[in-house]
Amino acid sequence: MRIKSILLFVMALCSIAVFASVDGPEANAGHHDPFARVFEFFFLILFLAVIGRFISKKLHQSAVLGELLIGIVAGAILYPLDTPVLTVFRNFDLIEEVGRMVTQENFTYTAAIDVILAEADLKPEAAEKLRNLFVKPELREYLIIGNSIRFISSLGIILLLFMVGLEISIGDMKKSGRESIIVALLGVILPFAFGYFVSLWLLPDLDVGVHIFVAATLCATSIGITARVFKDLHKLYLPEAKIVLGAAVLDDILGLIILAVVTGVVTTGAISLTEVAIIFVKAIVFFAAILWFGSALLKRTVVLFARFDRAQVKLLYPFALLMICAYLADVVGLATIVGAFAAGLIIREEAFHLSDTIGKSQKESLEVILAPLEGIFAPVFFVVMGLQVDTSLLFSWDVLMLGGILTVVAVLGKWLAGLPLKKGLNKNVIGFGMVPRGEVGLIFAGIGKSIGVLDNMLFAAVILVVLLTTVITPPILVRLLKK
Amino acid sequence: MRIKSILLFVMALCSIAVFASVDGPEANAGHHDPFARVFEFFFLILFLAVIGRFISKKLHQSAVLGELLIGIVAGAILYPLDTPVLTVFRNFDLIEEVGRMVTQENFTYTAAIDVILAEADLKPEAAEKLRNLFVKPELREYLIIGNSIRFISSLGIILLLFMVGLEISIGDMKKSGRESIIVALLGVILPFAFGYFVSLWLLPDLDVGVHIFVAATLCATSIGITARVFKDLHKLYLPEAKIVLGAAVLDDILGLIILAVVTGVVTTGAISLTEVAIIFVKAIVFFAAILWFGSALLKRTVVLFARFDRAQVKLLYPFALLMICAYLADVVGLATIVGAFAAGLIIREEAFHLSDTIGKSQKESLEVILAPLEGIFAPVFFVVMGLQVDTSLLFSWDVLMLGGILTVVAVLGKWLAGLPLKKGLNKNVIGFGMVPRGEVGLIFAGIGKSIGVLDNMLFAAVILVVLLTTVITPPILVRLLKK
Repeated sequence: MRIKSILLFVMALCSIAVFASVDGPEANAGHHDPFARVFEFFFLILFLAVIGRFISKKLHQSAVLGELLIGIVAGAILYPLDTPVLTVFRNFDLIEEVGRMVTQENFTYTAAIDVILAEADLKPEAAEKLRNLFVKPELREYLIIGNSIRFISSLGIILLLFMVGLEISIGDMKKSGRESIIVALLGVILPFAFGYFVSLWLLPDLDVGVHIFVAATLCATSIGITARVFKDLHKLYLPEAKIVLGAAVLDDILGLIILAVVTGVVTTGAISLTEVAIIFVKAIVFFAAILWFGSALLKRTVVLFARFDRAQVKLLYPFALLMICAYLADVVGLATIVGAFAAGLIIREEAFHLSDTIGKSQKESLEVILAPLEGIFAPVFFVVMGLQVDTSLLFSWDVLMLGGILTVVAVLGKWLAGLPLKKGLNKNVIGFGMVPRGEVGLIFAGIGKSIGVLDNMLFAAVILVVLLTTVITPPILVRLLKK
Repeated sequence: MRIKSILLFVMALCSIAVFASVDGPEANAGHHDPFARVFEFFFLILFLAVIGRFISKKLHQSAVLGELLIGIVAGAILYPLDTPVLTVFRNFDLIEEVGRMVTQENFTYTAAIDVILAEADLKPEAAEKLRNLFVKPELREYLIIGNSIRFISSLGIILLLFMVGLEISIGDMKKSGRESIIVALLGVILPFAFGYFVSLWLLPDLDVGVHIFVAATLCATSIGITARVFKDLHKLYLPEAKIVLGAAVLDDILGLIILAVVTGVVTTGAISLTEVAIIFVKAIVFFAAILWFGSALLKRTVVLFARFDRAQVKLLYPFALLMICAYLADVVGLATIVGAFAAGLIIREEAFHLSDTIGKSQKESLEVILAPLEGIFAPVFFVVMGLQVDTSLLFSWDVLMLGGILTVVAVLGKWLAGLPLKKGLNKNVIGFGMVPRGEVGLIFAGIGKSIGVLDNMLFAAVILVVLLTTVITPPILVRLLKK
């Protein structure tokens, strides 16, 4: 069976490689849809996801691990083949910076490229690839493809968190509030302390700002992976699931505060208490508004909406709420997935039980109606997350050593955070549920790199931490939950 | 009731205006999702769509007309308010051209802007707005929003055509093949002839190339509007629906040939027979492949796919086929919607009736599973189509006169094309079903403008033809079909 899986996998990758390396249709005289190639890549990514999930299942692993790993492997194979869209994925920040210099500082395009490539300190092959990309006439088409796929993936992860929220009620979250707070606070304090001392111990010559930043990155929690594992195994009803989800939401707020404090300390040497206060107030107002809306206004607004479009109320109302909550979360500085999760918490099936006097509404359950959206878009997030990992960065002794040790304390810190909870809970599930750093860790690391605190080696080490914590969690959780 | 509708409409627009004019969240220290504002606009567009449909229904009109008109009205109100995303929508070609000059010809950004604004010959207010947009630091964010919304709308229209195809079988299409060919051919010849002579008569001083191009634009058929009206009224089972859909598919091929011929004649003075032959061969190979796949391979590939992901085969297989067919249609030079329609024709519910020995597959019908995707994305296409109409272009005497007369012959040409069909068919439904020029007409007009054949006045007149033919069709079809 394993050999068959591997064969399949190789076949899949070969077909993908052929596909992705074929250049797009020439701009022909007829209508050329700028998004036709997005459809192609959407197809390829879904194809990869299906294969990845299948292999994962055969090896008794979780689906999300399969999607993530097949993305990583496909990326490792396609990147050396000079797949332009992949180069776009991995260098969005640099391309964006060129765009900024050209439009804001009136650099010529070639001058901006030279400056960026000189500053970015990439490996020679990577710099070469990026330069090739920049001079391709199809660059703008690749940017459209890259942006659209990123959008699909963004939509996918908020749909996933929304569906997770849908299975849980606000009451459940309140009930496990105390535990969530403990886990969130300890899950920030312990990894920070461990990270700080490891960094100080291994890199004694570097500035204190570096240690703080490395430590801060270890505090992050990305809930996407854990939420998906719980959902795939149908374990969202467990109290452990609610504690982890609540802690992850709190961690998002704590992360904002840490980032504000750390960036302040590193760049200006001071902590802005006003800024911290503003972050707090915004987050509290956001959650208060969500709770109030959920308890007082849901039913009424559903009835109002049903007057306008009764036939589709169960589809459009939840989706519209998801869009607006994800947006508002971003406005107050929180992650869009926190808003999406909140939107899911608000929505309750009962609120859609309308009397059928003024026309029919859908008879299917909310889950049946909304699941197809999640099924199409969510896998894209995990495959694309895998595609973005540049494995070639990781193979240096320094990176592996430092990254390995940081990973150990990163796991330890989150795991220990679950221990003080009351008996009867599966503390391992809670602790390991908090382990993946995912895209949140990447954001921290990216900021650290952009303000010049993390050099390339440290950045790569942190990426390794993000990768390892993200990849080891699904198999561990599957084991713990299946027991 | 009408007053209530109008009040509602005004309320909706006011709230939208407030929303859209608020500037996005400042780039804060935390995670700022580049797509958060796309979610905001997605919400606003769905909101507009619901209001538009509701008003339309109250006035006994078709839903699609409501979406289209509310888009036009919202655009007319928001554009003067300097809504940057709208400016992006309406000037994608010019922005793209600036991008090309900067990246391909190493112009500085400001120099490129000056050249483009000087060449584009916009109205002073429009030029001013575009210049303001170009110097905004958030320009790149607006481009991401604009691109993402266009992607959503592109996905929406192919999902719609896919669902239309799903309700029809390949056999149905073959049965009405002869009629479709008659309607398609006459529907090209008559509007071309009428358009040519009207243009010659009204603008005797202009070049013959101009007359040819104006005439060619009138040949276009956009099937989106008609398909939506048939679908909303549950009339896709009528033979008339199949004739119109078949004729629209043929029209897409004919349109490509006309465009190749006309562009050749106008730019080089010669018709490239090779090019015409290539277009023909590509289209025939595409359709032959589709038919063969549909008859010989569907069931087998579904069974194969089900081995990999049985639980989601009814969701992922059709969606993946849609993606790949839309892409391949674009590769052979056809519209992505033609590929999407073909994908829908191929898919048959029976092919998904698998024995349940190796696990369960979804019990809901394909339509129930896929409808939510269409319900979310398709309305965006029509609202965005409305938003893109620049009504201020249309209010000049010359434009209204010329556009009005061309519209009359444009309608007449398509309507007459239905008359020679055999008795028993509702010839009016067929003729008027072919009337909307929609985005296909826009593509023709755009090419005409870019090769310098159509000046601003003629371009605006053609836009008026596109607009009027698109807007008058739904109410006429509703009347004819409800009789």
